[in-house]
Amino acid sequence: MKFDVLTLFPEMITSALEGSIIGRAQKEGIIEINAVDIRDFSKDRQRHVDDYPYGGGAGMVIKPQPVYDAFKSLEVKENTKVLYMTPQGRPFCQRLAEEFSKEEEIVILCGHYEGIDERVIEEIVTDEVSMGDFVLTGGEIAAMAVIDAVSRLKPGVLGKEESYKEESFSDGLLEYPQYTRPPVFMDKEVPPVLLSGDHGKVDIWRHREALKRTYEKRPDLFEKYVLNTDDRIVMEQYLKNKH
Amino acid sequence: MKFDVLTLFPEMITSALEGSIIGRAQKEGIIEINAVDIRDFSKDRQRHVDDYPYGGGAGMVIKPQPVYDAFKSLEVKENTKVLYMTPQGRPFCQRLAEEFSKEEEIVILCGHYEGIDERVIEEIVTDEVSMGDFVLTGGEIAAMAVIDAVSRLKPGVLGKEESYKEESFSDGLLEYPQYTRPPVFMDKEVPPVLLSGDHGKVDIWRHREALKRTYEKRPDLFEKYVLNTDDRIVMEQYLKNKH
Repeated sequence: MKFDVLTLFPEMITSALEGSIIGRAQKEGIIEINAVDIRDFSKDRQRHVDDYPYGGGAGMVIKPQPVYDAFKSLEVKENTKVLYMTPQGRPFCQRLAEEFSKEEEIVILCGHYEGIDERVIEEIVTDEVSMGDFVLTGGEIAAMAVIDAVSRLKPGVLGKEESYKEESFSDGLLEYPQYTRPPVFMDKEVPPVLLSGDHGKVDIWRHREALKRTYEKRPDLFEKYVLNTDDRIVMEQYLKNKH
Repeated sequence: MKFDVLTLFPEMITSALEGSIIGRAQKEGIIEINAVDIRDFSKDRQRHVDDYPYGGGAGMVIKPQPVYDAFKSLEVKENTKVLYMTPQGRPFCQRLAEEFSKEEEIVILCGHYEGIDERVIEEIVTDEVSMGDFVLTGGEIAAMAVIDAVSRLKPGVLGKEESYKEESFSDGLLEYPQYTRPPVFMDKEVPPVLLSGDHGKVDIWRHREALKRTYEKRPDLFEKYVLNTDDRIVMEQYLKNKH
């Protein structure tokens, strides 16, 4: 799978993603990250790509021409998704990551300053995507998040140690707490059931912890989760003990 | 303001944040980013920091000791906020960025693999923070997002070109569309009012565009926005024309 990133800071993208799991996936050829410098498409000797906004106001706006020319240089297939990272977009979520992971190639446009001329956004962008209700200095970090979340869903990117079978959101509950050695750390013991060797009991304990934790930390997810009879008993008991 | 990042991939943090506006703010001494390698606190010759989870299951868990020792080495003041980036946390948002920007120092703990031993999280973490309902290979990109969103609120980090007075969320509406030269791009003209030189009219147009855009793209924000009489007339007209 290929990611093309249209940005004013290509080295931010390449350097941050060359380490870790995503770096390894690039070396193995499972994913390819092509960071394109919008400035390379400036028609200006000083490589300027921005100008004052029409109508006045603080800030500079990226001109439509260099963005359009950078996009055209990619020669992507028709119907290729072109994402624009903006707080105005659809919130990025695991379902969207799964949807994007089915694509062969994705283009991600990163804004900076006050924004990008609206006309080129209308012309090339297919999906406006948001990281959440906060403002970043540019779209690069948001683009990295999309690349990371999407790439790890591609077969072969995660090794067996990083298996994604049992993790957050895959069954609608948060993850249960994890423990490793030593058995006692700062007077805190690992829950004894985890040392029991009884896999059935471990599974039940983990599921119950995931239930309680989701109830406490993410009531919105808990509400959507369909409880079975045992779950209902566990939660009644838990709430009784709490009060 | 100082950010300490406890991570297995310190070079990801430092390289990604040395360019752009955040790089400049570091050079100017307004912010300091201290990426600490958790592996430096391994007591193991191979610098291992993870081990198998108690109770079995796929994945590896980061041991409590190296994380705790890395944290202790910072010698932060009592009551320093220690964030743990996890999909289980409170969703990061602009209000939280503003809250964090009032701190002198913030520690950010980044997880990897299946997670971090629960006991050290209980011991040191004050705030669990989430980027949204999606899973990343690690907490580094989420940490960068926090650092970027918080830093840009510190006086002196943004230059006048990057002014944050008029942008998304500051008044509860999305930003109006922006345009710059040329006046015609691919047969699309800049809205004539922006070329009129009439600042009053420009302001009214922009406010109305922000209203409509928020209605279309973020009905949740629109619902919370208190409309004045003029706003109500504009929206009635807009909805009538739409149908």
